[in-house]
Amino acid sequence: MPSTLSIDLLGAVAGVMTTLSFVPQVVKTLRTQQTRDISLSMWVLFCCGVGLWIVYGVLVPAWPVVAANIPTLILAGLILAVKIRNLRRE
Amino acid sequence: MPSTLSIDLLGAVAGVMTTLSFVPQVVKTLRTQQTRDISLSMWVLFCCGVGLWIVYGVLVPAWPVVAANIPTLILAGLILAVKIRNLRRE
Repeated sequence: MPSTLSIDLLGAVAGVMTTLSFVPQVVKTLRTQQTRDISLSMWVLFCCGVGLWIVYGVLVPAWPVVAANIPTLILAGLILAVKIRNLRRE
Repeated sequence: MPSTLSIDLLGAVAGVMTTLSFVPQVVKTLRTQQTRDISLSMWVLFCCGVGLWIVYGVLVPAWPVVAANIPTLILAGLILAVKIRNLRRE
């Protein structure tokens, strides 16, 4: 079995990767301000779910889950904010 | 402290919510076939990261992490597939 340290490290890499993945979408969305192809329901549900993951990670405790999901919530929240602001003209 | 069962249940709800969140995006993307506002880098990085979360969840073990991420990978993979197919005309 891999050590707890290597498992935590793997979780950290997974967390950094899924969290960083939202950065190019945030950059693209903030730059173009275009959100027509982005689903409102996806980002509403996603933000709620990520919030629950944070609570879950605190209770387990599984710190990579917490550490990955806090910045994810901020980044996903930015995308959702632009989408909501654009709703009227879409 | 909440019981292990309630924590697992919370993780399950979080997992169902973040995973289901991709369904409206998949439906929208498959229906419209429009992916211009969607970031290629986001979905490539995201799919790789979700794959690592699955490995992490197996090793901890944290089954809600595994159970949530397998369908997420399938749904995110569908969005990525349409985006890649559309690359030439974008």
